[in-house]
Amino acid sequence: MSTFKYPSVLQETIKKLACEESYKAVCHTHFFEHPMPSGEKLSEIVNLAREVIFPGYFGDSPVRSESIYYYLGVNTELLFKLLNDQILAGLCFQCNKNNPEKLQDHKEKAFEITKKFVALLPELRRVLSTDVDAAFVGDPAAKSKGEVIFCYPAIRAISSYRIAHALVNLGVPIIPRMISEMAHSETGIDIHPKAKIGESFTIDHGTGVVIGATSILGTNVKLFQGVTLGAKSFPLDENGNPIKGIARHPIVEDDVVIYSQATILGRITIGKGSVIGGNVWVTNNVPPQSKIVQFKPRDFLYTEGGGI
Amino acid sequence: MSTFKYPSVLQETIKKLACEESYKAVCHTHFFEHPMPSGEKLSEIVNLAREVIFPGYFGDSPVRSESIYYYLGVNTELLFKLLNDQILAGLCFQCNKNNPEKLQDHKEKAFEITKKFVALLPELRRVLSTDVDAAFVGDPAAKSKGEVIFCYPAIRAISSYRIAHALVNLGVPIIPRMISEMAHSETGIDIHPKAKIGESFTIDHGTGVVIGATSILGTNVKLFQGVTLGAKSFPLDENGNPIKGIARHPIVEDDVVIYSQATILGRITIGKGSVIGGNVWVTNNVPPQSKIVQFKPRDFLYTEGGGI
Amino acid sequence: MSTFKYPSVLQETIKKLACEESYKAVCHTHFFEHPMPSGEKLSEIVNLAREVIFPGYFGDSPVRSESIYYYLGVNTELLFKLLNDQILAGLCFQCNKNNPEKLQDHKEKAFEITKKFVALLPELRRVLSTDVDAAFVGDPAAKSKGEVIFCYPAIRAISSYRIAHALVNLGVPIIPRMISEMAHSETGIDIHPKAKIGESFTIDHGTGVVIGATSILGTNVKLFQGVTLGAKSFPLDENGNPIKGIARHPIVEDDVVIYSQATILGRITIGKGSVIGGNVWVTNNVPPQSKIVQFKPRDFLYTEGGGI
Amino acid sequence: MSTFKYPSVLQETIKKLACEESYKAVCHTHFFEHPMPSGEKLSEIVNLAREVIFPGYFGDSPVRSESIYYYLGVNTELLFKLLNDQILAGLCFQCNKNNPEKLQDHKEKAFEITKKFVALLPELRRVLSTDVDAAFVGDPAAKSKGEVIFCYPAIRAISSYRIAHALVNLGVPIIPRMISEMAHSETGIDIHPKAKIGESFTIDHGTGVVIGATSILGTNVKLFQGVTLGAKSFPLDENGNPIKGIARHPIVEDDVVIYSQATILGRITIGKGSVIGGNVWVTNNVPPQSKIVQFKPRDFLYTEGGGI
Amino acid sequence: MSTFKYPSVLQETIKKLACEESYKAVCHTHFFEHPMPSGEKLSEIVNLAREVIFPGYFGDSPVRSESIYYYLGVNTELLFKLLNDQILAGLCFQCNKNNPEKLQDHKEKAFEITKKFVALLPELRRVLSTDVDAAFVGDPAAKSKGEVIFCYPAIRAISSYRIAHALVNLGVPIIPRMISEMAHSETGIDIHPKAKIGESFTIDHGTGVVIGATSILGTNVKLFQGVTLGAKSFPLDENGNPIKGIARHPIVEDDVVIYSQATILGRITIGKGSVIGGNVWVTNNVPPQSKIVQFKPRDFLYTEGGGI
Amino acid sequence: MSTFKYPSVLQETIKKLACEESYKAVCHTHFFEHPMPSGEKLSEIVNLAREVIFPGYFGDSPVRSESIYYYLGVNTELLFKLLNDQILAGLCFQCNKNNPEKLQDHKEKAFEITKKFVALLPELRRVLSTDVDAAFVGDPAAKSKGEVIFCYPAIRAISSYRIAHALVNLGVPIIPRMISEMAHSETGIDIHPKAKIGESFTIDHGTGVVIGATSILGTNVKLFQGVTLGAKSFPLDENGNPIKGIARHPIVEDDVVIYSQATILGRITIGKGSVIGGNVWVTNNVPPQSKIVQFKPRDFLYTEGGGI
Repeated sequence: MSTFKYPSVLQETIKKLACEESYKAVCHTHFFEHPMPSGEKLSEIVNLAREVIFPGYFGDSPVRSESIYYYLGVNTELLFKLLNDQILAGLCFQCNKNNPEKLQDHKEKAFEITKKFVALLPELRRVLSTDVDAAFVGDPAAKSKGEVIFCYPAIRAISSYRIAHALVNLGVPIIPRMISEMAHSETGIDIHPKAKIGESFTIDHGTGVVIGATSILGTNVKLFQGVTLGAKSFPLDENGNPIKGIARHPIVEDDVVIYSQATILGRITIGKGSVIGGNVWVTNNVPPQSKIVQFKPRDFLYTEGGGI
Repeated sequence: MSTFKYPSVLQETIKKLACEESYKAVCHTHFFEHPMPSGEKLSEIVNLAREVIFPGYFGDSPVRSESIYYYLGVNTELLFKLLNDQILAGLCFQCNKNNPEKLQDHKEKAFEITKKFVALLPELRRVLSTDVDAAFVGDPAAKSKGEVIFCYPAIRAISSYRIAHALVNLGVPIIPRMISEMAHSETGIDIHPKAKIGESFTIDHGTGVVIGATSILGTNVKLFQGVTLGAKSFPLDENGNPIKGIARHPIVEDDVVIYSQATILGRITIGKGSVIGGNVWVTNNVPPQSKIVQFKPRDFLYTEGGGI
Repeated sequence: MSTFKYPSVLQETIKKLACEESYKAVCHTHFFEHPMPSGEKLSEIVNLAREVIFPGYFGDSPVRSESIYYYLGVNTELLFKLLNDQILAGLCFQCNKNNPEKLQDHKEKAFEITKKFVALLPELRRVLSTDVDAAFVGDPAAKSKGEVIFCYPAIRAISSYRIAHALVNLGVPIIPRMISEMAHSETGIDIHPKAKIGESFTIDHGTGVVIGATSILGTNVKLFQGVTLGAKSFPLDENGNPIKGIARHPIVEDDVVIYSQATILGRITIGKGSVIGGNVWVTNNVPPQSKIVQFKPRDFLYTEGGGI
Repeated sequence: MSTFKYPSVLQETIKKLACEESYKAVCHTHFFEHPMPSGEKLSEIVNLAREVIFPGYFGDSPVRSESIYYYLGVNTELLFKLLNDQILAGLCFQCNKNNPEKLQDHKEKAFEITKKFVALLPELRRVLSTDVDAAFVGDPAAKSKGEVIFCYPAIRAISSYRIAHALVNLGVPIIPRMISEMAHSETGIDIHPKAKIGESFTIDHGTGVVIGATSILGTNVKLFQGVTLGAKSFPLDENGNPIKGIARHPIVEDDVVIYSQATILGRITIGKGSVIGGNVWVTNNVPPQSKIVQFKPRDFLYTEGGGI
Repeated sequence: MSTFKYPSVLQETIKKLACEESYKAVCHTHFFEHPMPSGEKLSEIVNLAREVIFPGYFGDSPVRSESIYYYLGVNTELLFKLLNDQILAGLCFQCNKNNPEKLQDHKEKAFEITKKFVALLPELRRVLSTDVDAAFVGDPAAKSKGEVIFCYPAIRAISSYRIAHALVNLGVPIIPRMISEMAHSETGIDIHPKAKIGESFTIDHGTGVVIGATSILGTNVKLFQGVTLGAKSFPLDENGNPIKGIARHPIVEDDVVIYSQATILGRITIGKGSVIGGNVWVTNNVPPQSKIVQFKPRDFLYTEGGGI
Repeated sequence: MSTFKYPSVLQETIKKLACEESYKAVCHTHFFEHPMPSGEKLSEIVNLAREVIFPGYFGDSPVRSESIYYYLGVNTELLFKLLNDQILAGLCFQCNKNNPEKLQDHKEKAFEITKKFVALLPELRRVLSTDVDAAFVGDPAAKSKGEVIFCYPAIRAISSYRIAHALVNLGVPIIPRMISEMAHSETGIDIHPKAKIGESFTIDHGTGVVIGATSILGTNVKLFQGVTLGAKSFPLDENGNPIKGIARHPIVEDDVVIYSQATILGRITIGKGSVIGGNVWVTNNVPPQSKIVQFKPRDFLYTEGGGI
């Protein structure tokens, strides 16, 4: 009896959805020749950069002294091409003017930025190798540097951060944020690409780490899972909205270790060589060489019966 | 000398694994015509819904006033078809009776539910646009609403939640849970599809957020990473098992902000306009407009030498 | 005017990247016949193992008593083949000697290990079914065991752990770590494959859970999201580096429940039947049947005006 | 200056194309629940059938006496499922009534036909092995039967034919024709699925062979490339259109060989044991044991200068 | 003993291959921003065009009067975009000047051509529907026009030809040839895109048909497999090379039928309504209404024993 | 009423198919470590070889003097690796002994052959460039050598032939035949890899061309579509089977042109500079500089009414 007819609700709903009133606030206008940034391509770019920086670990390119030159040549050139396209897409996404002169400007700008980024790759490799050393030395469970490079989520998150940070410094919009959110999704580590982080940086386990946009970290800093370097409060403008762009996250000096779930809030300074214990909540400056733990962390409350 | 023969252990193990004793408790019996829910298809559905709700950001469909109608038409119709199949699969998964009349019933029910869901899309778009506004206004690092829609894990998690919640309300089994677990995996944000959440909702960073099944959130609520809205304890039945279905998670009223790692447990109420500080643990009602922080959060314990 | 020429910076950068000085510390030397471990293949292996252990839930193999034997035969044989290759790749990754006799040794060793692993599958199924029971009984929101097997990230993480742990016990390098990091990325649950965990284990929500390499958990343990079973401090060797391989993580006895965000550090023992409340920080032994909560967790600090 | 605007011709053209006048003669109306036949699925089906018939040559299933049973079980069951769907799609394609009772009838019919087809697989294997023998014995360049099965386009075309012919006999519409056109495209051999062909059939090289719908071939027939077994003329009905369904192609008796480019037209009989030479054109009956060659095939015309 | 070392022959060979002497005659120089024509994209374009012309047969777009407009909108717009890119690639392939002004010119030209092509789609549909009618009426084995559209290689080849011919007329280089070679590979039918072919054209079986670049065919022409409409000889220039661009292929007037393997060579005219028999070789004009068959096609030569 | 039960015919059929009696004549026994030849990999190999030989036309590697070296390096090394695997697979396919020493022998042999093949690549490029020249000069429709390399099926077939022939000369079993059958399927041109063919060889249109295993062609030979260079008859051994390996195909001397559909049979010689017209059938030697056409090719038979 009952047959499935074409449901009229479909047509009515499509009409409502296609009504400008409905979509104008949440749509992206996209011009004929303007590319959109592509998460898939950015993932390919980050993987290629990792392949170029750590030869032989990722991708299918075996490393032999006889042939490494070919592989680096091909991969770096491909990286150049893909990144150039995505930087252009980022510039168009932000600008969103349907204007051929503007598009030509963006193309030239993208080309210049890509050249500068590629020139940074050897330095990125050098800095990331200090991060690998830090992770290897600091983790009693690490068997070899190879294992660290190949499997550690921290190295994945930090290499994405260092790539994204270099792009931010070169003035690329949206793309760095997309790269850092991809690493966030994979590792649970959320490092804003604008944060400044010194060499020999490492994170253990990592899930839940948050490093805010105006954070500044020295060299040889180590974080554990769940650490937040966040803002304490957002000064509001006359309309009650947060003022954008104010320094509002911590400065963490050299050689600091921060244990799991610790929350460090506001533009405070954690002095050189300090150790911050797990689960503490810090909103004031900490002098160098401090060691901070929860007050009376071991006060137990013994209860009997019932739930807790 | 030693050659690799077909290992007899393979055959023996297969025999053990195929023994009903071994598999009966952990297998799913699947009937000839019954479809299985598919994570891959659900991911396609959620992406399509996002494409329909936020035209021009996802998928390959450029938005121009001249052609948006075509794209919404095709995408909504495809969404209809895919969702209809998955709802049917969900009904079969739960029911698991090999009965052609039952299957026909499920088909009709799936068709009716899908029609109702599709009719909700314009309203889902309206509500999600309040969430986008809330995220944009509340985050000093956000450059544009476009960036929020395109990259923020919160919008990804909240849109999956709102889709899953609509399906729960329409009586769809298993599928909403699969959708929310997919978003959980991508973002680290775990919102149970049964939770009730008002408009203008936002989450910053998000990793580790948990919102339990019977939670009720008002409008304009903001959460930070690691916040738990959980159950304090589970009343047990006569067999010592948790009684299912009891209201056991918090009520969070309008305009509440809860900072990172705070844990709110039990069927308590956080009053309108309250601010809950980071890392606190709350298990009693909180009156409106309260501001709660850790007691003496800045008591430092200076130690010398040794570990902490 | 301005045309895009081949950028000379590309060639210069490639030359720098291909300079042995630059890459030697961060490259992996890979010999002609040596396979590399493959994340993609490991993912396929874990999925196959899940398909074999929980017939009918994953993959495309419907379960009927008439045909289950075929599917288990094919899947187990394929699992054998893929795993054999990856174990070989793991042995080569660690050894890294370009030596045909060594390669032959690895092949034979990989074959023997794979046979032993496959023989463990029925027992892995039995143990995992106790984990499924625990998750189902302990979660008031769970509708059926099927839902638990099909959607719960805890079951995903625990099955990966049990597979990885079995491989660790058989002496396989790198591969178990890769498997556990894949589960970590998907679920936010980081269980070191060397940890020892008893039957009927479950985790609720899970994001942010960390279980360190030398942890020992009894049967019927339940953890909530954000729980850390970590090391308190790392004894240093004469060079100031952590000494590797020391027992440094907690022992959690049978029937213990640990609530969200609790941090348990060091080689301490949480006695049988204890309940550890959320957000607490424990570094000393806890006697059996203890119930521990934060001291004065409900001390509120009411503030007026300003930020918190 | 010139910018790329949305071309108005697009909208105008779409309007014309969507006008019922324009599309009604060339569109296929497709009902909500009716599947369409799928070339991709049919290709998968033919490959599966080949894998089942010639174990170990195609697909990834190694053949060992210990495990062949599993592979045949899984592959045959998958073949059943895929074929059942395609037969249903074929029945719907032909019928094209939007009627749930009709759909249920088609489902039952498809299921019955699929069962009958699967039961024919052992016999298909037996017959195809006679074709393999014929190809191996008859080709001086063939090194082994394995090479014949694995690489010869004739075996590919003949196995597709035998599968399609079995489906035609079971009353399946459209699907057999699609299968034979797929083989035609791959091999250049066009065998109508309605043709009747005996055992030990082989084709050498094969490109350009055409065997019409009402052809009947005995056992042990061998064809070379470019041979046509066609219709001489089509009797017309009162409207001047060819009358459909009349026997109009040749009967080729046992043990006949037909060399390259020969054209045999009309419902004539080529008698047992005859040999037809290359490039001849035959439209009358040929008695048994005849040997036919072009008349004076070696008359040369020597010309000088100019073109030919 | 013998170990596999990196073979030095690899490096030597690469050096030879990268020597300009070796590659300069056979390489394609490709400039930074210039796209290359892509066979894959062209295949997508041809499929899209077929989907737009014959709605409901190809692709996944069901045809219902309620929604056909959406599908045609999306598909036509995508066709526009893809074709625009390929036409640009074709213009660059031919021109091969690394010059940004030239590139801009090509872009504008490609855009104009694409607009013109799209505007031809309704007419292409109309003409192709006459070809479908011709194939259906002329083939006693055809069950329905749907079968003809869906499975017949002739329709595949003729629709590719009509698309390619339209592109040739609009001045597009290389792309039409690529499209016709793709159809040639699939169907064995080789129609040069420059040939002119009237309405109601059909080909039966088709393998081996060749229609040369300067052929002109009237309406209602029917060809069988293996028919060649070729050039008799190529007038040579002073260097002994064929002079390009001379009319050198046959004119076939309306209502002509040419049977299998017939070879028609040179700029001759086959008069209206003529029938050319199989395997004949024609190099002179044929008057209207002629019927030509092989002379004494049935002279048999009976031989005994020996080979043929 | 009628429900779809698991069909018992499935189990019965599987039992029959898995019976050794049934499968033993048509199965391939495959040993644990022995690879199978893979059509997919061979296709990748042929494409890579084409990319290396004709840089810039195929694949994604743009050619610039600055970077061609990288691309050739990477592609040649990948070609080496893939080909080495397939040659090994070919040796195992033929040998089919489950013997580790034998396998080691095959590995060493495959490695040596692969080295020799790679060393031939520069010479293959040189010879193929003569074929490209011949096709370009001889075809009035060819616009550029680039078009010839990029689109002509003849170049595709001839490059596959030259690769396959080089492998035959190096003693590789099965693989060359698979390569030539792949080209046969794509182009309709069937060149046996054992045939010997001189430089500057070309084929126009090509569908249906057959060149037998013992054919010998001089330099500068041109064939048209449908030409057969075949065997006239196969001498039989005492069992009535064709004797394998006898020279049985034509010798075609330098500068010969053979027009479409001509059939040249037997170990005869077509003398230098001869021209063979279309559709002729030649089984005797032809002296140098001959021009052969069909005798009385233009005798028409005018008939009235009826069919032909």
